[in-house]
Amino acid sequence: MSEMLDTQSAWLDEAELQSVRDRLPMVYVDAVPVRVDSLGQVTEVGLLLRVLPDGSISRAIVSGRVLYGERIRDALMRHLEKDLGSMALPSVPTSPQPFTVVEYFPDPSVTGFHDPRQHAVSLAFIVPINGDPTPSLDSLDLIWVTPIEAVSMAFQSQMSGGQDRLVRMALAHCGLLP
Amino acid sequence: MSEMLDTQSAWLDEAELQSVRDRLPMVYVDAVPVRVDSLGQVTEVGLLLRVLPDGSISRAIVSGRVLYGERIRDALMRHLEKDLGSMALPSVPTSPQPFTVVEYFPDPSVTGFHDPRQHAVSLAFIVPINGDPTPSLDSLDLIWVTPIEAVSMAFQSQMSGGQDRLVRMALAHCGLLP
Amino acid sequence: MSEMLDTQSAWLDEAELQSVRDRLPMVYVDAVPVRVDSLGQVTEVGLLLRVLPDGSISRAIVSGRVLYGERIRDALMRHLEKDLGSMALPSVPTSPQPFTVVEYFPDPSVTGFHDPRQHAVSLAFIVPINGDPTPSLDSLDLIWVTPIEAVSMAFQSQMSGGQDRLVRMALAHCGLLP
Amino acid sequence: MSEMLDTQSAWLDEAELQSVRDRLPMVYVDAVPVRVDSLGQVTEVGLLLRVLPDGSISRAIVSGRVLYGERIRDALMRHLEKDLGSMALPSVPTSPQPFTVVEYFPDPSVTGFHDPRQHAVSLAFIVPINGDPTPSLDSLDLIWVTPIEAVSMAFQSQMSGGQDRLVRMALAHCGLLP
Repeated sequence: MSEMLDTQSAWLDEAELQSVRDRLPMVYVDAVPVRVDSLGQVTEVGLLLRVLPDGSISRAIVSGRVLYGERIRDALMRHLEKDLGSMALPSVPTSPQPFTVVEYFPDPSVTGFHDPRQHAVSLAFIVPINGDPTPSLDSLDLIWVTPIEAVSMAFQSQMSGGQDRLVRMALAHCGLLP
Repeated sequence: MSEMLDTQSAWLDEAELQSVRDRLPMVYVDAVPVRVDSLGQVTEVGLLLRVLPDGSISRAIVSGRVLYGERIRDALMRHLEKDLGSMALPSVPTSPQPFTVVEYFPDPSVTGFHDPRQHAVSLAFIVPINGDPTPSLDSLDLIWVTPIEAVSMAFQSQMSGGQDRLVRMALAHCGLLP
Repeated sequence: MSEMLDTQSAWLDEAELQSVRDRLPMVYVDAVPVRVDSLGQVTEVGLLLRVLPDGSISRAIVSGRVLYGERIRDALMRHLEKDLGSMALPSVPTSPQPFTVVEYFPDPSVTGFHDPRQHAVSLAFIVPINGDPTPSLDSLDLIWVTPIEAVSMAFQSQMSGGQDRLVRMALAHCGLLP
Repeated sequence: MSEMLDTQSAWLDEAELQSVRDRLPMVYVDAVPVRVDSLGQVTEVGLLLRVLPDGSISRAIVSGRVLYGERIRDALMRHLEKDLGSMALPSVPTSPQPFTVVEYFPDPSVTGFHDPRQHAVSLAFIVPINGDPTPSLDSLDLIWVTPIEAVSMAFQSQMSGGQDRLVRMALAHCGLLP
């Protein structure tokens, strides 16, 4: 299946994708990777370190586009694997109900969630990581921080596009917003 | 704002939209219109009567595309107004969390939700209607049925694309699936 | 019905209720009153001013016990009416799914949500107020503040028992946590 | 901790518990045990076989009381372990938000959810089972059925108290109501 998707994705080449991005909202998924204890309670949040298109460095969660013909669960798993490696063993939620929907706009003033490239509508999920994640090629680093650290200025200021707020919204949904 | 959106929508002409529909998932919203009593409990579900692209007639809920630059709430309100008129006075929910996400595919076997034209990812909401709705030009009729009637074979068999299931999922979310 | 409930409530007199409170979790509802715009987006949060059992004054949301035989919706409506008056015209949500469940314990270290009198499990809802609320006998005052004001130190520090966090969790659920 | 809870539970002896059950709603948790595939999609629902207080036999999901001082997660884990054994390895959800709240009343006409002993307010969760569950002393049997089997008359008619509906509501929440 992923081969088929790659073919389709290739079929929409970069120039075409760029053209469409100016005229249609893109479907995205955001996944907040977490470690949980034996009772399912979040103990740590996983933050990637990424180089952004403009060359700056940013802490980030897992995020990516849903392809034509791809199910939400497949997109989540594909992006989790791409960012955290094949040994991460993520538990994608049983329900398609996201904990929130994030609307990224090129204009940061609309919702506070910002993507200079496009208007993206992103379904956001909290995903427990049970295995041994390793940051992939796209990521420079992966760190695990406690909920309190995750909402600290030190880490919040390192995230961009509103992902600092998304992490706090995820913790709020888990009853753990400090 | 709607003028700006119309312009952008026009800019992506029918041929272009058709071309993109084969290559990108579309962002949709589904709204299940309901009547509620003074305690907020659903008493009736609103069903439109529509002529489908193939000329057949179908009961349907409110459903439509999210445009580039348009917020989810604006898209919900626009489609509710288009289908139920400007006196419907809908209460769009306070939270962007949909009660479910529906994945419509051209292939009906993938999820059971089917749209022959496209792959659509639809955020589904339950929307109380407080005013005086009137079916618009696009709809032949609007009827209000009880939850028990809504899940009866008589009405379920008149819906298409999986919207019969979506109505049952909405009632389940409200604690009212018979 | 409320007469029947009052009788039953009276039947469990204060001494008995006190005794049971040491041995069983109580069922509660929390309602965050909000004002919404025509698109359903939260514009303001309502905060009551209350005298707590210990004589201190605190900003608070609507909160109260569910009685024997009482439905969640009836309890929500009863407490909203008691605190905001009979002209408040609240829109109780269509779904019984709360946006969160708050666990109040006599020991503030368990969850951070604290009730010195009891262990209470509270279903929390966001409730749009459409009418003309007036603070009732139990409340000294009712003010409406923007989301940004609601999470400011000025107001957060005036709430107790963890309700400051609950207000932030409600705003996060609405996509409006600053 | 469970020793402390047992002591407190014993302290509220059967006669006292019976007396209180006539006058206060009880806090419950319901857990629908499921098997999931590698993408998190539900493939099977677990149904216990139980002897009810009246001697009849019924298919059932995991359900039980929350004790004084006990967290929701601890109650879920305790009842899952009691019914499915210590090797079941359940994944209790990260969020305290239940997929629904079930109101069981002695009068079956109020909500359709029925408990002849009491008024119970139950937080319902879908819980993936990753290990090797074995029915415990309280259960005669545990079977795993597909979503389609779970909603078939054969199994729906074997459930009581409205748990047939709760299973359908759980499947609806997972996007899998047939």
